[in-house]
Amino acid sequence: MAGNTFGSIFKVTTFGESHGPAIGGIIDGCPSGLLLDIEAINTEMQRRKPGQSAIVTQRKEEDSVQFLSGVFEGKTTGTPIGFVIQNTNHKSKDYAHIKDTYRPSHADFTFDKKYGHRDYRGGGRSSARETACRVVAGAIAKQLLKDIKITAYVSAVGELSLNKSYKALDFSEIEKNPVRTADADMAKQMEQYIKDVKKQGDTVGGIISCVIENVPVGLGEPVFDKLHAQLGKAMLSINAVKGFEYGSGFSGTVMKGSEHNDLFNEDGSTKTNYSGGIQGGISNGEPIYFNVAFKPVATILQKQPTINSDGEKVEMMGKGRHDPCVVPRAVPIVEAMAALVLTDFWLLNKLSTL
Amino acid sequence: MAGNTFGSIFKVTTFGESHGPAIGGIIDGCPSGLLLDIEAINTEMQRRKPGQSAIVTQRKEEDSVQFLSGVFEGKTTGTPIGFVIQNTNHKSKDYAHIKDTYRPSHADFTFDKKYGHRDYRGGGRSSARETACRVVAGAIAKQLLKDIKITAYVSAVGELSLNKSYKALDFSEIEKNPVRTADADMAKQMEQYIKDVKKQGDTVGGIISCVIENVPVGLGEPVFDKLHAQLGKAMLSINAVKGFEYGSGFSGTVMKGSEHNDLFNEDGSTKTNYSGGIQGGISNGEPIYFNVAFKPVATILQKQPTINSDGEKVEMMGKGRHDPCVVPRAVPIVEAMAALVLTDFWLLNKLSTL
Amino acid sequence: MAGNTFGSIFKVTTFGESHGPAIGGIIDGCPSGLLLDIEAINTEMQRRKPGQSAIVTQRKEEDSVQFLSGVFEGKTTGTPIGFVIQNTNHKSKDYAHIKDTYRPSHADFTFDKKYGHRDYRGGGRSSARETACRVVAGAIAKQLLKDIKITAYVSAVGELSLNKSYKALDFSEIEKNPVRTADADMAKQMEQYIKDVKKQGDTVGGIISCVIENVPVGLGEPVFDKLHAQLGKAMLSINAVKGFEYGSGFSGTVMKGSEHNDLFNEDGSTKTNYSGGIQGGISNGEPIYFNVAFKPVATILQKQPTINSDGEKVEMMGKGRHDPCVVPRAVPIVEAMAALVLTDFWLLNKLSTL
Amino acid sequence: MAGNTFGSIFKVTTFGESHGPAIGGIIDGCPSGLLLDIEAINTEMQRRKPGQSAIVTQRKEEDSVQFLSGVFEGKTTGTPIGFVIQNTNHKSKDYAHIKDTYRPSHADFTFDKKYGHRDYRGGGRSSARETACRVVAGAIAKQLLKDIKITAYVSAVGELSLNKSYKALDFSEIEKNPVRTADADMAKQMEQYIKDVKKQGDTVGGIISCVIENVPVGLGEPVFDKLHAQLGKAMLSINAVKGFEYGSGFSGTVMKGSEHNDLFNEDGSTKTNYSGGIQGGISNGEPIYFNVAFKPVATILQKQPTINSDGEKVEMMGKGRHDPCVVPRAVPIVEAMAALVLTDFWLLNKLSTL
Repeated sequence: MAGNTFGSIFKVTTFGESHGPAIGGIIDGCPSGLLLDIEAINTEMQRRKPGQSAIVTQRKEEDSVQFLSGVFEGKTTGTPIGFVIQNTNHKSKDYAHIKDTYRPSHADFTFDKKYGHRDYRGGGRSSARETACRVVAGAIAKQLLKDIKITAYVSAVGELSLNKSYKALDFSEIEKNPVRTADADMAKQMEQYIKDVKKQGDTVGGIISCVIENVPVGLGEPVFDKLHAQLGKAMLSINAVKGFEYGSGFSGTVMKGSEHNDLFNEDGSTKTNYSGGIQGGISNGEPIYFNVAFKPVATILQKQPTINSDGEKVEMMGKGRHDPCVVPRAVPIVEAMAALVLTDFWLLNKLSTL
Repeated sequence: MAGNTFGSIFKVTTFGESHGPAIGGIIDGCPSGLLLDIEAINTEMQRRKPGQSAIVTQRKEEDSVQFLSGVFEGKTTGTPIGFVIQNTNHKSKDYAHIKDTYRPSHADFTFDKKYGHRDYRGGGRSSARETACRVVAGAIAKQLLKDIKITAYVSAVGELSLNKSYKALDFSEIEKNPVRTADADMAKQMEQYIKDVKKQGDTVGGIISCVIENVPVGLGEPVFDKLHAQLGKAMLSINAVKGFEYGSGFSGTVMKGSEHNDLFNEDGSTKTNYSGGIQGGISNGEPIYFNVAFKPVATILQKQPTINSDGEKVEMMGKGRHDPCVVPRAVPIVEAMAALVLTDFWLLNKLSTL
Repeated sequence: MAGNTFGSIFKVTTFGESHGPAIGGIIDGCPSGLLLDIEAINTEMQRRKPGQSAIVTQRKEEDSVQFLSGVFEGKTTGTPIGFVIQNTNHKSKDYAHIKDTYRPSHADFTFDKKYGHRDYRGGGRSSARETACRVVAGAIAKQLLKDIKITAYVSAVGELSLNKSYKALDFSEIEKNPVRTADADMAKQMEQYIKDVKKQGDTVGGIISCVIENVPVGLGEPVFDKLHAQLGKAMLSINAVKGFEYGSGFSGTVMKGSEHNDLFNEDGSTKTNYSGGIQGGISNGEPIYFNVAFKPVATILQKQPTINSDGEKVEMMGKGRHDPCVVPRAVPIVEAMAALVLTDFWLLNKLSTL
Repeated sequence: MAGNTFGSIFKVTTFGESHGPAIGGIIDGCPSGLLLDIEAINTEMQRRKPGQSAIVTQRKEEDSVQFLSGVFEGKTTGTPIGFVIQNTNHKSKDYAHIKDTYRPSHADFTFDKKYGHRDYRGGGRSSARETACRVVAGAIAKQLLKDIKITAYVSAVGELSLNKSYKALDFSEIEKNPVRTADADMAKQMEQYIKDVKKQGDTVGGIISCVIENVPVGLGEPVFDKLHAQLGKAMLSINAVKGFEYGSGFSGTVMKGSEHNDLFNEDGSTKTNYSGGIQGGISNGEPIYFNVAFKPVATILQKQPTINSDGEKVEMMGKGRHDPCVVPRAVPIVEAMAALVLTDFWLLNKLSTL
């Protein structure tokens, strides 16, 4: 209700501000008997964490997750999984300068107006630090999904775009470059571009694409909880996301039905996949693919005019260690949210028929 | 859970198949004391209904809504509002030819696989007929929202696109043309284009844009139920939708932070509005605007190869009266879903502070 | 949220006032493939309906249910089941005398104060007419539960009490007498007593007991949604219910642990069953049994002083055809609510383990 | 869904096992701007905690709560309140003897069967230790409710019963005696009785009564979420509870309508209060009162025959430090759960009318 829970069966509730003592969450509805691969969870956390390369923020956060319940002798017990991640690097003084200042295109103004009282240290709850909890939950969801393979990658940074179907890409490249794109040449261009943008004290947007393979037929709950509707919500709930499209997406709007229809093979698979693996809100067994648009990070290391909470004009200058481009670190978040959506529907689908 | 409820406070649950005796729904959570404007509800129903112009399906459906509860002496009572819409035009025989056939890019295959048993008459539950119930609920939501003005319009049909900011458009044009676009000249071109497509027995996609004005600051519930995340889900749950973007959307991904940031005026309004009226998932008082991508309708009046439920190749030919382009009739549906999202958050926001 | 939905997976939402055109509901989450036994549903409706014997209200209501969706060729399809029951006997004029009057121990006062506007015809939404919808949904739930046997019966009418364990009773007696008690002699006494009370224009309370046999181990979702907690809520949500106890109940409070503990047999069954078939909120395979306390019906055919909505003293005299004792007709309602609780937990329990 | 969340607006989700590193929870939906009285929260924790007197368990648990989020500069911020309570006294070795043994009338058997894998240390999730989290959340809810006064007290221990209406009691006595009953003489008798029972290595049940004063009219959401239905669920979800009755309760079943009806005074108050402050599921402004039945604690310090997980007969002997009677420590838990129910409905009721 108040917006901090995701999912209906595999329910994840998170808490925490960027500069409080800790963030964390509760996963309620994880089936018992899953042998948790803690290392796999840590790997996902490492992919999201700051400081992993020269093109992301140089903040240092340990991001080490501690499980407090729901796991016994290595296996999930069916009871709620509580976890916390300590905030080891919360230098509140870094944020004294923005206490009364509304940073442009941040959530300072709206949080203040909505709640009348806000934690001004680094954005508080609106900080993307919260997504670390999503990655924890998503990493567990991935383990439940077993053979379903979720692969996200950066497909555009500013004007630099892969412009290739996912079928033409080599996914083994993704983790080999700091941009997390699926093409070695483009990776170098994108990396250089982000460095240039950073040097200017500026930031730039980008696109993450995601492909989900080996999806069983039947996931999704029409009419309101269509698979792509829930995927869209999941992605749009990630900080800085401005758009979502799946299958043919916006480019499908210029097509004719006679081109766009995916004709069947005799085994029920389809010859084309403009549908993006989803028909009528339900997975059809073909790969699901979608694009997620990220805006440029709002914190720039340039002087900007703005106002304070008294409505007075002030000047501000971004400080601290911020990402010049958010997409490399958002790749595991996209995967995590996709995993949460699929897990929920995979569990629910067990109840569709007698 | 099973996907037929939308909203958490102003909760709408719908039922009904295209060819059953009736469709309908229950609105639970509508505050008491609203003097219902039945005519306004009927007007919205007329905008959605088939047969209203030469460029939409020529099916005849009365689409007259009967309220069964929750309204007394003209006003809502706070108890659930039950309503039904009779299906007056369900010629089941029209659909005998598709009983065992999976129509390409329809939900026949996925519903059959998911549920093991489907109502094959016209798509059953996956038919867009269900959206009539959304329009009823949305029309009531609009009345609750009073001064909040929701305006949707067709901004593209195939390659024909308005290519203008909403600020440059004359919304008074929208209901004057059957396409529901906001430009008289473009309306004629689009209309002719849809007629041409129809003549070929084909269909085409399009884009609906929506602008919401006079929105109070504070709507939206981070971190998962951000205003734009819920809007995105709402739009993606509409039949044939493939994508959603708000504010700068996908085009924002190529911008720099220094360009994209919306600088404040002293009154808290912003000089630009790349944010699309939403910061951190919460409305900031600026106009909200977004685009919704619709694929071409899957039913075409051309011969198509396909398979039947035994996995055998068959040929099929679309019959009946279908929309060559779905966007003109989807305009009121987009508005209805936007109204449902805003109403839910407007009610919830009353509980944000002591 | 607004209180008209029961259940989390097998979700039942109802609407309707006693004197509107119809009542009805939507069941969302019923698995597909259930061959609906319509006759069994009608039988349950007959058990609840007015006018079936001399000791219940003589109102005439057809209570015939019409299914509008979710069922095709006799079987559930997995889509929402919409249904309506016409109100054929709503003589609004019967209620003109209470328009501005708050009847003692009715919900007139509280509904008026809460909503500021109420349907004064016969209690409107607070009328027990609404329970007809629960019986429809419960009858479907019973069919899903198959071998789980739910048996409710009247165990007390006023001071007349069976005072016997359910094991000592002959359940085949229940439907043979109009009181629905499980003992032929007591049935006659109770029947005569209700007739006497009726003659005096008065009403009397009673107790319904319920036994559930053949329950699989594992139903219930601790810690908040314990099986007995949800059963208690279900029963307390029925009109006129004042109390709920299961297993040893209130009489267990005077026992010692050494007496009360249910010792195990080697097969996991227990020698005694003070636990009432539930341990830690989860069914243990033993019979579940519980008691539900009903107050005397508030409408009496005697003059009573009361107040009107202006706070003025007035006299009122109950009119119309009311039940002198509500328990005989409430027996199928208790069973229906028990069936809804069990069905929800039975479905959820499929997701407990990998 | 999986049962670890209570409430729909003021939502409390808890996690934690008795012998894991910590228990805790998240409160989502607390309005911003509440100046948290931490001392008042600690006071409630002290009332629940073990070791506070000679008649309760002598386990030592610090039960000190740490808030991790949602509070800034002393006030709630509207973001989720995360909190943890360390388990300082978890001597797992105490429980080695029950690893494979199903203790009679405990949840060992049902948890094992439901989840196939359980935390056998002290009951794990089914331990009443979990209720510490409820007390934290309830203490915050109490602060939101301000003038609404919730008072619970022990009204019976075994056969020893107060047998007085709440109106005849002196609530100032409650915290003066370790039993938490509202009568000094009876307190001594009950205390002695509990000591005697303890000496025998046995346990005994009891009843807690609760009175809620200064309740505004209008709380409760018919038809399923009636105020008393939700109160009943809340109470029945507490460990060891076997029954719930409100107002006239089970004793109301032997009354006539002419006696039971609560006649109005001109100001809308009622001359009697058999209704227990609730009409039609909605508070009417009169005091709410109810009784909660607790069974004797299942752990007794006597030899008992039982079975192990292989279905073999074994003997067991309770060890450790257990409560001979649970009701003195359950008083703050009953109050906490009542506070959660009222807070939820108090918030929801703000949305009942335009």
